[in-house]
Amino acid sequence: MQEGNYENKLKMAKNTNIRISLPAVCFVWQIAMIILFGVFIRYDEESDTHWIEHRRKKNISTNLENDFYYRYPSFQDVHVMIFVGFGFLMTFLKRYSFGGVGFNFLIAAFGIQWALLMQGWFHHLDEHDWKIKIGVENLINADFCVASCLIAYGACLGKVSPVQLMVLTLFGVTLFAVEEYIILELLHAKDAGGSMVIHTFGAYYGLTISWVLYRPLLSQSKHLQGSVYHSDVFAMIGTLFLWMYWPSFNSAIADHGDGQHRAVINTYLALASSVLTTFAISSISQNNGKLDMVHIQNATLAGGVAMGTASEFMITPYGSLIVGFCSGIVSTFGYLFLTPFMEKTLKIQDTCGIHNLHAMPGVIGGIVGAITAASASESVYGQEGLINTFDFKDAVANRTVNIQGGYQAAALFVAIAFGLVGGALVGGILKLPIWGDPADVNCFDDDVYWEVPEEDENFLSRHPNMNHATSIPDV
Amino acid sequence: MQEGNYENKLKMAKNTNIRISLPAVCFVWQIAMIILFGVFIRYDEESDTHWIEHRRKKNISTNLENDFYYRYPSFQDVHVMIFVGFGFLMTFLKRYSFGGVGFNFLIAAFGIQWALLMQGWFHHLDEHDWKIKIGVENLINADFCVASCLIAYGACLGKVSPVQLMVLTLFGVTLFAVEEYIILELLHAKDAGGSMVIHTFGAYYGLTISWVLYRPLLSQSKHLQGSVYHSDVFAMIGTLFLWMYWPSFNSAIADHGDGQHRAVINTYLALASSVLTTFAISSISQNNGKLDMVHIQNATLAGGVAMGTASEFMITPYGSLIVGFCSGIVSTFGYLFLTPFMEKTLKIQDTCGIHNLHAMPGVIGGIVGAITAASASESVYGQEGLINTFDFKDAVANRTVNIQGGYQAAALFVAIAFGLVGGALVGGILKLPIWGDPADVNCFDDDVYWEVPEEDENFLSRHPNMNHATSIPDV
Amino acid sequence: MQEGNYENKLKMAKNTNIRISLPAVCFVWQIAMIILFGVFIRYDEESDTHWIEHRRKKNISTNLENDFYYRYPSFQDVHVMIFVGFGFLMTFLKRYSFGGVGFNFLIAAFGIQWALLMQGWFHHLDEHDWKIKIGVENLINADFCVASCLIAYGACLGKVSPVQLMVLTLFGVTLFAVEEYIILELLHAKDAGGSMVIHTFGAYYGLTISWVLYRPLLSQSKHLQGSVYHSDVFAMIGTLFLWMYWPSFNSAIADHGDGQHRAVINTYLALASSVLTTFAISSISQNNGKLDMVHIQNATLAGGVAMGTASEFMITPYGSLIVGFCSGIVSTFGYLFLTPFMEKTLKIQDTCGIHNLHAMPGVIGGIVGAITAASASESVYGQEGLINTFDFKDAVANRTVNIQGGYQAAALFVAIAFGLVGGALVGGILKLPIWGDPADVNCFDDDVYWEVPEEDENFLSRHPNMNHATSIPDV
Repeated sequence: MQEGNYENKLKMAKNTNIRISLPAVCFVWQIAMIILFGVFIRYDEESDTHWIEHRRKKNISTNLENDFYYRYPSFQDVHVMIFVGFGFLMTFLKRYSFGGVGFNFLIAAFGIQWALLMQGWFHHLDEHDWKIKIGVENLINADFCVASCLIAYGACLGKVSPVQLMVLTLFGVTLFAVEEYIILELLHAKDAGGSMVIHTFGAYYGLTISWVLYRPLLSQSKHLQGSVYHSDVFAMIGTLFLWMYWPSFNSAIADHGDGQHRAVINTYLALASSVLTTFAISSISQNNGKLDMVHIQNATLAGGVAMGTASEFMITPYGSLIVGFCSGIVSTFGYLFLTPFMEKTLKIQDTCGIHNLHAMPGVIGGIVGAITAASASESVYGQEGLINTFDFKDAVANRTVNIQGGYQAAALFVAIAFGLVGGALVGGILKLPIWGDPADVNCFDDDVYWEVPEEDENFLSRHPNMNHATSIPDV
Repeated sequence: MQEGNYENKLKMAKNTNIRISLPAVCFVWQIAMIILFGVFIRYDEESDTHWIEHRRKKNISTNLENDFYYRYPSFQDVHVMIFVGFGFLMTFLKRYSFGGVGFNFLIAAFGIQWALLMQGWFHHLDEHDWKIKIGVENLINADFCVASCLIAYGACLGKVSPVQLMVLTLFGVTLFAVEEYIILELLHAKDAGGSMVIHTFGAYYGLTISWVLYRPLLSQSKHLQGSVYHSDVFAMIGTLFLWMYWPSFNSAIADHGDGQHRAVINTYLALASSVLTTFAISSISQNNGKLDMVHIQNATLAGGVAMGTASEFMITPYGSLIVGFCSGIVSTFGYLFLTPFMEKTLKIQDTCGIHNLHAMPGVIGGIVGAITAASASESVYGQEGLINTFDFKDAVANRTVNIQGGYQAAALFVAIAFGLVGGALVGGILKLPIWGDPADVNCFDDDVYWEVPEEDENFLSRHPNMNHATSIPDV
Repeated sequence: MQEGNYENKLKMAKNTNIRISLPAVCFVWQIAMIILFGVFIRYDEESDTHWIEHRRKKNISTNLENDFYYRYPSFQDVHVMIFVGFGFLMTFLKRYSFGGVGFNFLIAAFGIQWALLMQGWFHHLDEHDWKIKIGVENLINADFCVASCLIAYGACLGKVSPVQLMVLTLFGVTLFAVEEYIILELLHAKDAGGSMVIHTFGAYYGLTISWVLYRPLLSQSKHLQGSVYHSDVFAMIGTLFLWMYWPSFNSAIADHGDGQHRAVINTYLALASSVLTTFAISSISQNNGKLDMVHIQNATLAGGVAMGTASEFMITPYGSLIVGFCSGIVSTFGYLFLTPFMEKTLKIQDTCGIHNLHAMPGVIGGIVGAITAASASESVYGQEGLINTFDFKDAVANRTVNIQGGYQAAALFVAIAFGLVGGALVGGILKLPIWGDPADVNCFDDDVYWEVPEEDENFLSRHPNMNHATSIPDV
């Protein structure tokens, strides 16, 4: 009881009441979205009722040529990754499953709206009427953009308030749109699955925020910083939906035809390969060869991250296997050695280990992409194939593959720089004592922001039927 | 122990033995389905081996023009919503997860068969050979039809026997088919995502049944009428799969091309918007701004329901955001104030709060649809676009948008009327004391209809390894 | 405590340390995969950058004619069945959920790589350059092939080490490829959904292995051989994703156009029908008509298995209902009577009851396929339709439907024979005392191969807030 009092005092030291701030942020921002959408966002020619006239004008023979039919199945897979994949992957903590899946839901739902605007302004603003015309590809890109913020959330899981997460997302999406514009439009780098644009940026953004928000006394909530049996099974739902649909992620906005087809094959193979090396390293690192669920839940996905940039390229099937092989090893070693090291020495508390799952494999993906691009050749790609794959036309019609490789490498540095600088700035904002974040002793605890159902210790005694059943020994 | 005896007596008052009735109903109805399918149901021209001749005759250049490729991805998403979405959404009760997901499975599997027949007789009966020719669109419509019965199940969850649910479904599907025929064929109203046809009808059907079956002593099973931590996480699986795939629901049978494309965009936006307002109202209503899982699990979906009718229309992206904004607020307020009010004053016990998730957003959807239709114009839709969107041809070739708006409003009243009258009739049938429904003290308890595994209190003591592990303090 | 010591002694009798063997197997086999992929596997013409030239050469008008757009949505559904469907179906045991979903993940990820090679050598080896050219159809076939090994895993669940599972998969995939070659290429039998090739083979392969590995003292771990409440709900995730996506499974590699369309309709109906008969038999077999989760989780799927061979045929919608009707009954009766009989009399310990879910319905599917094929006629199929459906061209251009029926029956025997003989051989290999399998007392226990999180009995006492909450009675 005395211990209880002491803890209660510690809690009182921090005000986690978000009854004003969270509703205010949600309402103000949602109303802002409505106004900005009213001013800027319209249907594009494929989702507008004028499509039938557009078809006739462009001599398009069938409704199937509407981009909807090329991309909608992939979009839905990506959508599942964002909400169930990321959401359930973060349910592994014993008492933060509500926060894991619930706040993921909140910030993703906000982020996709803001992303449609930000990405629209940078990429799709119609010069004639200053409107952004949206279709299914914009929806996919908005999901992609939000993914970077969800990655960043992984580093902060359990240590921040939902209001802080909304701020993290607002700035994250903004930074993403600028970074993406520089990488894809100015540098003309290719990054279909976002190894650099999404994963590297998102991970360093989150890690830097976590570094700024360092909590020296976090061990006070150490008893909540692990999983229980069933929370680990819940997290596997997230892992598997991410793993299964990653081929859709890396191919969703790839070129129609062979581009999407090849991106799927490459990602499928890289993922399969990283599963085996993850199991191997996990087993070799433990007493009796026992496997660690943290590794299986996370490092098995490294192959998908690392295949993000090169997924469209002719990296060959065995090349994909090699990428998965290496990234599975690197990622699992990260969980074993780097995460503890970073926490102790670098003062970076990375709840979900995003450095291992997104940062390192993302950087690998960027490097693999640069090398694969630099070594592309007409003999492998075919003359037209090379032009199509790298979009060597218009302003970059004369670019060589070597120069393309250089720009790919430059893009990687842009992603890292945006993550570090952006994270430092946003971390500074989030450090202000106005956001209702939890005390150290209260981290990883749903009870702070959620009405948690009472655990029913006395359930059986009030339920005579079942009581009866359990009184018969079953051995 | 005394209490236990008392409770046992109460239970004995009701016979919940369904060993004869449930198998009898299942067998008789399944055999009836086989006979009726034998008489009436055949493949349509796109799923028949004569497709190749049909293609040649109609000069269709590619297999892709088979409707299968337009609709199959959406069909599968809808299928997931019906079985995993609705099923897991109903697992939130601490001891009724088997019944939630299991009975949902049973009645949906029966309902889709009966729906193929009922909808076939009303919409697709071939005049020449009196056969119903089915293809993928019929499968989607059958799933839609069943959705209305699953909504009705939500009001009765935990308080009825599986035999009653089968009866509820038999009549529910029948009523649905008639109502749908009146609304879509006679009134020629548009309702691609079924705000009126599915949600409004289903909700009032279930609420009226629940009203007829009112249980004054339901508080006797109050200790089972809440969630536990993990059952709330299970329910989030249902919520998210409904939320993610709702764009497919509202676009699955929309017009090829821009119709499906636009329905997806509108629904995606409305859903995103209702997430933010749900979080806002949930937080503002509680002490310290704590969020309530009941709201997050349900009211976040209101935007999808409310966008059902207008999803195909040119409601504009910001219009969709506004619809989601309002329906999220209305739905959450419903959970806060209306559900307790209805239980106390109107004697309607609505276990899942379908009035808040389906009835009110469904009515909003019907009204939004009527207004949007009435305000449609050639300047926005284009001449052809207007005709295509509202199918102003054949018998209704000369209908104006204003008249269409009127018919949309009339359709809403038809849906409500069918729900109320149908629910009263079916509720009366279900009140007969022959269906094996549970006693008041036994509601919300899987133990009545399921072999529930014994909870293993002494698990650790018989499992020395783990016992050992837990004896080491981990703090 | 004494009991604990005794158990510990028993455990020491078996060495379950896999710290060398599992990583060694994973690394060696993954490196072998990389080398073999390097030598043999390339992109096919639809996933290669030369696709654009190929299109021009073949006069293909649109990118949509790339097989990717015909098959990718079905592929993703199948992928979900393999990893989430099979994986979560095996989480039902109270303390083997990690092993169920985790080892399923490991062996599927390895198996698909090996399957691409084995199936490629037998079916797709290019005679000119001795390369295997892969596209999306190969990915589906690899998933199919792995399914047979996952079925076999079901019989061994909880009783084998992950190293044994890797060996089971290596040989299982090898045997599968040969068997599939004989059935599909030499006998020219049709088996789109693999009733024979996948389910019958996989089930008898696993059952024979389980028979060879018979454990007379398995009752020592009987206390772990059941479910708990939440593990049964997890298993329903597996059940439902298998059930919902089975139409995709049976149609994924069916003929473009009406073939895929019809396979979906037939499977959808057979599955719906088997749900009703499963509920009926489950209820009739128990006291008070209570339902058994084991039946609902498994036998409801029997209709999908039994429709595997005939899914493409003109079996008619009511024919599909009849197939589902019978297989649901047979499968549930299997769980009630055959599984206990087999364990006691035949010494076959079948953890998941794959004999009831895969073997018997698979055989039914083979027989139904043979009969349906033998009774096909030009009057029903149309002249071209008959040729297309059964591929009566080239070497088998003159085959009659009767002869086709005979070959279908022969194929069923090939599948059974491969399962029995292959299972005996592989069972013998797995019986060697070098694989680190658990002692009898240690079966069905994740603690042997996994770092299991400590169950936190004292959670509440260290968490004053919640303690406080639960001290208020909620009745």
